[in-house]
Amino acid sequence: MTDRIRDFLRVRRDLGQDEGPVMVLDLDVVRDNYTAFARALPDTRVFYAVKANPAPEVLSLLAEMGSCFDTASVAEIEMALAAGATADRVSYGNTIKKERDVVRALKLGIRLFAVDCEAEADKIARAAREAGVATGAVQVFCRILCDGAGADWPLSRKFGCVPEMAVDVLEHAHVQGLHAYGVSFHVGSQQANTEAWDGALASAAMIFRECGLRGIGLSMVNLGGGFPTQYLKAVPGVESYGDAIFRALTKHFGNRIPETIIEPGRGMVGNAGMIEAEVVLVSRKSADADEVRWVYLDIGKFGGLAETMDESIRYRIRTAHDEDRMSPCVIAGPTCDSVDVLYEKQHYPLPVSLSIGDKVLIEGAGAYTTTYAAVAFNGFPPLRQIVI
Amino acid sequence: MTDRIRDFLRVRRDLGQDEGPVMVLDLDVVRDNYTAFARALPDTRVFYAVKANPAPEVLSLLAEMGSCFDTASVAEIEMALAAGATADRVSYGNTIKKERDVVRALKLGIRLFAVDCEAEADKIARAAREAGVATGAVQVFCRILCDGAGADWPLSRKFGCVPEMAVDVLEHAHVQGLHAYGVSFHVGSQQANTEAWDGALASAAMIFRECGLRGIGLSMVNLGGGFPTQYLKAVPGVESYGDAIFRALTKHFGNRIPETIIEPGRGMVGNAGMIEAEVVLVSRKSADADEVRWVYLDIGKFGGLAETMDESIRYRIRTAHDEDRMSPCVIAGPTCDSVDVLYEKQHYPLPVSLSIGDKVLIEGAGAYTTTYAAVAFNGFPPLRQIVI
Repeated sequence: MTDRIRDFLRVRRDLGQDEGPVMVLDLDVVRDNYTAFARALPDTRVFYAVKANPAPEVLSLLAEMGSCFDTASVAEIEMALAAGATADRVSYGNTIKKERDVVRALKLGIRLFAVDCEAEADKIARAAREAGVATGAVQVFCRILCDGAGADWPLSRKFGCVPEMAVDVLEHAHVQGLHAYGVSFHVGSQQANTEAWDGALASAAMIFRECGLRGIGLSMVNLGGGFPTQYLKAVPGVESYGDAIFRALTKHFGNRIPETIIEPGRGMVGNAGMIEAEVVLVSRKSADADEVRWVYLDIGKFGGLAETMDESIRYRIRTAHDEDRMSPCVIAGPTCDSVDVLYEKQHYPLPVSLSIGDKVLIEGAGAYTTTYAAVAFNGFPPLRQIVI
Repeated sequence: MTDRIRDFLRVRRDLGQDEGPVMVLDLDVVRDNYTAFARALPDTRVFYAVKANPAPEVLSLLAEMGSCFDTASVAEIEMALAAGATADRVSYGNTIKKERDVVRALKLGIRLFAVDCEAEADKIARAAREAGVATGAVQVFCRILCDGAGADWPLSRKFGCVPEMAVDVLEHAHVQGLHAYGVSFHVGSQQANTEAWDGALASAAMIFRECGLRGIGLSMVNLGGGFPTQYLKAVPGVESYGDAIFRALTKHFGNRIPETIIEPGRGMVGNAGMIEAEVVLVSRKSADADEVRWVYLDIGKFGGLAETMDESIRYRIRTAHDEDRMSPCVIAGPTCDSVDVLYEKQHYPLPVSLSIGDKVLIEGAGAYTTTYAAVAFNGFPPLRQIVI
């Protein structure tokens, strides 16, 4: 919670414009976060993960500060370019791309692509020929699987291949004439363990060596994202991550440390945004006063809080009554969908005096909220964002 | 799959307009479904659950055929009215409503409201006074909890109270001057057990008796939705549900059978819609040929297939190669989000010849897809719908 957000919400309320949930994002926090990343990892290029929050104001600020951009689609590439980034500062980091989208990206000037299998490298080589771009000017990095232990937001095996296969994929890309550039991985979103990069960097170093034996000189390691924002639990600062990553790089690459990239998303914008929502109903399921209270907000899983899925992300929720006695609650959203429940397995303590009509503030909501919101589920509009 | 949808997709492809996933909905199927409900439960009013698919064409067709509408928000009420329904044919069926939304609904002429606690009844009584509507003209029904055994889409305890409490809630509404009208419940979405209504109807009859003893004459039972559409598993026909419900009504209410309402959503539009999507990538995670294939589509959890959450709804997926040998696959969506995986715990058999660029048809996709889609996650646009 920043003073700027507090002041903004006060004015908005005084003006009577506080209808429906809103996410307010403070650009000053984003600025501080970018600076912290740049300081903690001074030799690493920062590629902001646009998917975390593609607000034009965020992209423009970061473009101005010198950030690069990790994008998931042609639409995101276009947003980054529109915000002032040059094409050489944009990566097409999705390992799942339609060939015609690769052509579009190449025509927009993008030269850096993620792959995790030979078929994807083939697409890029064909697309380069179609777009009239020299394959040798197109850099590809291969994503490897990573176990994600220590992360709060579940990782799956969706992206990446085993490290041994990455060597073949990169060689295949090389044979296709592409520039086999390096390796990427992701240690899992909201990663609380600063040492999580160590194992993946060991694999990356192995891939560098094996590719070297095949005459392919890799030069880049994409360290991915995973940098946390603070929800309920305290998390280490960015500098701890920087230190641990630098130690692991030195350990596995000796004095031949490669170029590096990081892709913070949540860590760049998570703590910059706060949702103001309203209590729509407080009730119990039986007349028994010991029964847990149900608190229904005007925002839920389909309105922007999708990351409460399986109760993975546990947001800090503030009310005007936080000095009062607390009691455990179930928290649910406003839709007629029974899965639209935020916290039920692990009850959430809220003040006993919390009432219908009260405002609540959901902190750390700057990432993965606005664009996750359903387009019109149950007739509710998607989450609005106001950037200040 | 209907001939009309097949012809439409063929023409669209010939015209080169098949970019991105699309849901095609055949109104003829909706017409048949409405007729089947009306025949199977001839003395029951049909309130279509607008949230399942609020396409204006669907609402207009159903309004014309005589359907009533169950709505979750003021926006949905406005859609139903715009489609030609009169206000007396619209229910505000969400138990979680802002008081100012109740005022809006009353001003639009709505007189039928769901509640599941005293606080919600209080809101409605206050709103009626604010809107200048006689409280006695406002009908409320109390939703009770129901265990949902036999349903594929998880029910939670989010809506409803225990039956004993419902008696108090209805008495409270009555004391507030509202018309305590009846009881509602929901047996769980995609309910395969035609007998699932029996237990809830026993509770409803008990509530009718208890309210009667307190001088309150209830007259309506809202039987909710839950009527399935066919996905992979065969499901009973609507007439079986009609028979079982009529038997249970007779069993519990004798010859004093109340007015009844049903709220089909999925059962009305599910089998009317089909998504055409594209295979973006087929890959393996290691060079081992025994490794399961990953098939990535251009639609996933955030693009409209949210009901694959926990692999609850298992869609039938057709390809042009279904005569070929099948092998188990993981199916995932196109976003850079690792939870955007559709079927992984239970692999999905797809033809070994399925290739990048192939189209696939996802059947039974008319309900809970378009409006569930995220507004712009990863830069991907929400699912388009074409009604034919």
